[in-house]
Amino acid sequence: MTPAQAQQHLRLARTEGVGPVAYRRLLARFGSAEAALEALPRLARAGGRKEMPNIPAPAIVAQEIERVATLGARLLFLDQPNYPPLLALLDHAPPVVSVLGDPAALSARAVALVGARNASVNGQRMAETLAAELARAGLVVVSGLARGIDAAAHAGALSAGRTVAAVAGGLDIPYPPENAALQARIAGAGAVIAEAPLGTAPAARHFPRRNRIIAGLSLGVVVIEAAPRSGSLITARLAQEAGRELFAVPGSPLDPRSHGSNDLIRQGAHLTETVADVLANLPDHPLRQGLSRDPLFARGPVPGVAEPAQEPFEPPEAASEMARARTQVIDLLGPSPCSVDDLVRRCQFSPAAIMAVLLEMELAGRVQTLPGNRVALLTNGTQ
Amino acid sequence: MTPAQAQQHLRLARTEGVGPVAYRRLLARFGSAEAALEALPRLARAGGRKEMPNIPAPAIVAQEIERVATLGARLLFLDQPNYPPLLALLDHAPPVVSVLGDPAALSARAVALVGARNASVNGQRMAETLAAELARAGLVVVSGLARGIDAAAHAGALSAGRTVAAVAGGLDIPYPPENAALQARIAGAGAVIAEAPLGTAPAARHFPRRNRIIAGLSLGVVVIEAAPRSGSLITARLAQEAGRELFAVPGSPLDPRSHGSNDLIRQGAHLTETVADVLANLPDHPLRQGLSRDPLFARGPVPGVAEPAQEPFEPPEAASEMARARTQVIDLLGPSPCSVDDLVRRCQFSPAAIMAVLLEMELAGRVQTLPGNRVALLTNGTQ
Repeated sequence: MTPAQAQQHLRLARTEGVGPVAYRRLLARFGSAEAALEALPRLARAGGRKEMPNIPAPAIVAQEIERVATLGARLLFLDQPNYPPLLALLDHAPPVVSVLGDPAALSARAVALVGARNASVNGQRMAETLAAELARAGLVVVSGLARGIDAAAHAGALSAGRTVAAVAGGLDIPYPPENAALQARIAGAGAVIAEAPLGTAPAARHFPRRNRIIAGLSLGVVVIEAAPRSGSLITARLAQEAGRELFAVPGSPLDPRSHGSNDLIRQGAHLTETVADVLANLPDHPLRQGLSRDPLFARGPVPGVAEPAQEPFEPPEAASEMARARTQVIDLLGPSPCSVDDLVRRCQFSPAAIMAVLLEMELAGRVQTLPGNRVALLTNGTQ
Repeated sequence: MTPAQAQQHLRLARTEGVGPVAYRRLLARFGSAEAALEALPRLARAGGRKEMPNIPAPAIVAQEIERVATLGARLLFLDQPNYPPLLALLDHAPPVVSVLGDPAALSARAVALVGARNASVNGQRMAETLAAELARAGLVVVSGLARGIDAAAHAGALSAGRTVAAVAGGLDIPYPPENAALQARIAGAGAVIAEAPLGTAPAARHFPRRNRIIAGLSLGVVVIEAAPRSGSLITARLAQEAGRELFAVPGSPLDPRSHGSNDLIRQGAHLTETVADVLANLPDHPLRQGLSRDPLFARGPVPGVAEPAQEPFEPPEAASEMARARTQVIDLLGPSPCSVDDLVRRCQFSPAAIMAVLLEMELAGRVQTLPGNRVALLTNGTQ
């Protein structure tokens, strides 16, 4: 990828309204970021948007690219071969991530280890031991750089091998501040990955997005000490939705920090006492059912995972037919999410035409694409 | 049951070589204990025994009956309607048990609560709370009067309802001695049950038999803090073999006392944090597959459980044919246990003839009847 191409990719990724789904579809349909950027205003207009989409100027993204380079980090794009392959399988994989350290650590077989910030001494010991044993077994240990279980997991893994931290803010704003040194050590012996651009201070809304990166990078997620409704349980749910294995360390019912993990076991997570429990249940690849069933999401072949059949990117319908397709799709959609498969079944137009309409409408801010290949109408959108 | 009948039943139950299976078969075949006692020497001889079987004299059992009465206890016989109905479903239900307190407590819906003697403070608190909540929900809490979890379970249940202690020795030798007062309280608000006759000091070999009574009385068994290879895990296995529900309270992998219970969860026991987990998974009756498939074991109808078809107790074969049946059964059996069903399938004689031969051989000490309706040849038997 040339510097000029990287710049165009970053412009596309940072364009308002271009989420991960639109990013992939635009590149798949138009072949290059440049062509996609050129088509974007027309598509957004066709989808019902009145103002021009807010595409960042080349100078703005050039500045970002320069700051990333100064920090010693690099950008990885969703459509490029060096993008973490398991993360790319997520329906909502980030179009671009910034990475400190060795990007190869993001492509290795990995297990995530997550849990409570206010973890018990025993919980932290458990995390540290398990992480060291996983690292010794050749696995990369992924966690979120938070206090408690996360920090213990990173420390344990660093004692024996590689670890990856997915952070909620930008790479240049380590959080919590006390873990800045730990972040630097992780970058030196693995990688630190961020979805948010440099300069982003982590806010509450960034954490669930960070959690999906933790789940997305990993073949399985181990939960240690998670209270009900905690962030760790969000990570667990995202992992399960992505077809990753779920592991939980049991604990006494008298400790509220055990309730979440015990509940995961009750729901089918592998009861985990030692590294053997993880290794015995770790698949070679994520489960097939966790992958998107949208053929337009398809990327290069994933080893061991059958590739869905490709469909044409350009709709076969004429322009006048496309206008009718738009009307029908808008009529059929509502504010409650429905599956794209169902939509295709109930429309008389080709799947490619429906996908094209959905892309336009997403760019126009009139539909929202949701995990599990579902879409919903945004009733108070920006049209 | 008249005092004279009770005396004959106790003579039969206390006859050397008359295990629970032979006791049931003899009563089913001969209709009364008196008739069975009369037939016994002949059957044992036919099975290959040379000496006369050691049937206790009427005066001996009269003395036992008197001591039981003096203690304020009573005897319950396997073939009588006041025998605990779930216990009677065990293949190896004791022919006679002695009971202090209210025998009705042994027929109520019950849950066993078992665990480590050297339980943690938290484990004991868990046992006490869970037992009190189960008692409050109207269930009888069964345990083994041991130190640790058992004592805490009994104490918790006593605070809110009824409890039953199954003890390893005789009713007149409370064990451990420090729990003598607890045993007396349990007898006052529930029942204490013993398989061993009065005067028996508990020895190591009595505890697995005691554990099968705990499992046998209960619809389900809850395990709290059980180390690998502990007695609580024996109770759990026996409960599972008898088709009872299995529950386990999880604990930290760092505490060896949790390994057994965590392992049970891994194997399918219900993860249990509160009484709700037990109540939600407690059946109305033991699972059908836990019941013996031997039609000769059948007793009166169990509510909600379909009754197997009855077979004739007297073999249709003539005496000369029975001699041939004996030879064939001996040839087919070996020191490794085989299922009675398989034996019946591979013999050319009627099931009733094969059962009669097995009964004779058991009385002669030449075959051993094992749980799960299996038999094995005793190669260095008493013949």
